[in-house]
Amino acid sequence: MKKDSVFNPWEVKGDVDYGKLVKEFGISLMEDLPNVFSKNLLFRRKIIFAHRDIQRIILAIKNKKPFVMMTGLMPSGKFHIGHMMVAQQMIFYQSLGAKIYIAVADVEAYNTRGLSLDGSRKIALNEYILNYLALGLDPKKADIYFQSSRSKEAQKSNAYYRLQNLLAKHITFAEFKAIYGEITPGKMVSALLQASDMLHPQLPEFDGAVPVIVPVGIDQDPHLRLARDISQRIKSKNFIQLSSTYNLFAPGLSGGKMSSSDVNSYIALTDSKEEVERKIKKYAFSGGKDTLEEHRKKGGNPDIDVSFQYLKFFFEQDDKKLEKIYNDYKSGKMLTSELKRITIDKINSFLKEHQRKREQMRKYLDEF
Amino acid sequence: MKKDSVFNPWEVKGDVDYGKLVKEFGISLMEDLPNVFSKNLLFRRKIIFAHRDIQRIILAIKNKKPFVMMTGLMPSGKFHIGHMMVAQQMIFYQSLGAKIYIAVADVEAYNTRGLSLDGSRKIALNEYILNYLALGLDPKKADIYFQSSRSKEAQKSNAYYRLQNLLAKHITFAEFKAIYGEITPGKMVSALLQASDMLHPQLPEFDGAVPVIVPVGIDQDPHLRLARDISQRIKSKNFIQLSSTYNLFAPGLSGGKMSSSDVNSYIALTDSKEEVERKIKKYAFSGGKDTLEEHRKKGGNPDIDVSFQYLKFFFEQDDKKLEKIYNDYKSGKMLTSELKRITIDKINSFLKEHQRKREQMRKYLDEF
Repeated sequence: MKKDSVFNPWEVKGDVDYGKLVKEFGISLMEDLPNVFSKNLLFRRKIIFAHRDIQRIILAIKNKKPFVMMTGLMPSGKFHIGHMMVAQQMIFYQSLGAKIYIAVADVEAYNTRGLSLDGSRKIALNEYILNYLALGLDPKKADIYFQSSRSKEAQKSNAYYRLQNLLAKHITFAEFKAIYGEITPGKMVSALLQASDMLHPQLPEFDGAVPVIVPVGIDQDPHLRLARDISQRIKSKNFIQLSSTYNLFAPGLSGGKMSSSDVNSYIALTDSKEEVERKIKKYAFSGGKDTLEEHRKKGGNPDIDVSFQYLKFFFEQDDKKLEKIYNDYKSGKMLTSELKRITIDKINSFLKEHQRKREQMRKYLDEF
Repeated sequence: MKKDSVFNPWEVKGDVDYGKLVKEFGISLMEDLPNVFSKNLLFRRKIIFAHRDIQRIILAIKNKKPFVMMTGLMPSGKFHIGHMMVAQQMIFYQSLGAKIYIAVADVEAYNTRGLSLDGSRKIALNEYILNYLALGLDPKKADIYFQSSRSKEAQKSNAYYRLQNLLAKHITFAEFKAIYGEITPGKMVSALLQASDMLHPQLPEFDGAVPVIVPVGIDQDPHLRLARDISQRIKSKNFIQLSSTYNLFAPGLSGGKMSSSDVNSYIALTDSKEEVERKIKKYAFSGGKDTLEEHRKKGGNPDIDVSFQYLKFFFEQDDKKLEKIYNDYKSGKMLTSELKRITIDKINSFLKEHQRKREQMRKYLDEF
């Protein structure tokens, strides 16, 4: 990693060397998956490119046994297309029989970012959960909760926080530092609560002994390592080792990481069609050549072109159409302006339908 | 404090210099208290010798306003006479209108002593709570709970653990180290939970804005300092500053600290009359002189005599009788064997009645 890079669960700066991280973290590159996974664009296109212990999940799917997908959301900023990746995985796993656990990390937001619980609640509901529902999450097969208020059933709340507290016995400060680098009491407590988020679905008060898959960006792997390590030390609990998958980061508009704190780095799911058009035209990093003449002659580079990446990650479901765009852009037959036009239209067509669905789903928010 | 002394909430070794600690910790020596306090032996004899902010409690008592006494118990070893001090304060404050909160520190026992929750539960019920009831605690005016399972009402459990989690934001590692010395994740999490124990009675889900008094041995003051400091940093919560009182340690049989891990350092409330007789005769440190002749001539020292201390702390309610024993022993009129005889008889008479009551109270244990 470069000298001025920062890479930890709270901050990612600079280029990410996936190959090096896979090796360093000891995770496995994704091998051939059963056919059912190829229905999902993210798996089919190897955007989800690595895993730990996914075999348990594959087996559960094959044998139609129960399993859980667990994820968390940091309630800050707007819900953007980068956030769609985990939502799409929720919906995919739900279609395969998984129960979905979604933790609103409001305690972590308070302890590590100073956000109020009330503020977190509003953002979580209006930005994240509403968009999950509009994207197709079935709330009846999901357990959506706030870290600050786990359940309406005391037995469940007690079990969840008890686990957080007891986990502390099974880890040292040296290990926290080795995993997280700099650490504060607030971060430590949040990391333990996040370990409980990942592990508590297996408690008898919840879904019992079922495999749990946690899909993350690779920057979140430290949390996984912590939870995996501790879980095996509490002999009395017999936790099944956690499974996880790792996705590539969707690039921000200008090519860096998509960041909630930089409004010009992302397309939000609430953006108007004018905003989408403006952002793609003005900010989307292009793989095209400097002059029309040069582009026609030498062709563009779709592998670094952000508009193309958005089609690949999210908006062009048809592999053949995507391949044709790739080839046409690479050969110079397609210009940057044309590629951007396709992307803008695809995004706006998606957002129009999505924003309609979102208003329909607003009535379900009252449940929370 | 001497070089080989250890003094922190988890371990006390060597002599305790109360005067120095009062100064160092910034607590106040007890001044004149309203008459009602003189009904209680511990206050009357200045065994409870210092405090922080007791004026709020005095005011609540005077104005017949609600207040809370909060205490915790470490479920390890046998319930001995040293443990009676806090029980007697519970019963005293209950008679003055307080609601009593009692936390069974099973999470702390797990994290700092490696005790299982099941084991802690059994000890807490059969040793501590049963003895509290037999000593006169009214369970209807008390909220007795386990740290690992706060309440049967989800709202309450959520509020209690939420507070623990949010407190972490308002303290640094440096402060933890300054207060506790060596610290582990398990100890840190336990300290935060203990801060929530002390502060959560004031939450709206519990008793709201009421003053809370926490009676402790002076070794537990670090926990108080932590909870007091953090509480004033969470501006949104408006916690009333905690009150606390500090009692002298009842000496162990041979003069050091009474320790649950050394069976010959204490009288347990389950000891038989033969055990009491044997322990006092064999182990109770004497302030008498080496020979009968010398004792008659020069007199004994009741201030260091453990039998006399037990009469003073616990078993001789009558101040005049106690004074006579003091004077007779000091003058040499009373021999050590006579003082020990009085003490043995007083303890056994108390234990006979207490053990009968304890069996009567066993039926109430089912509630927990």
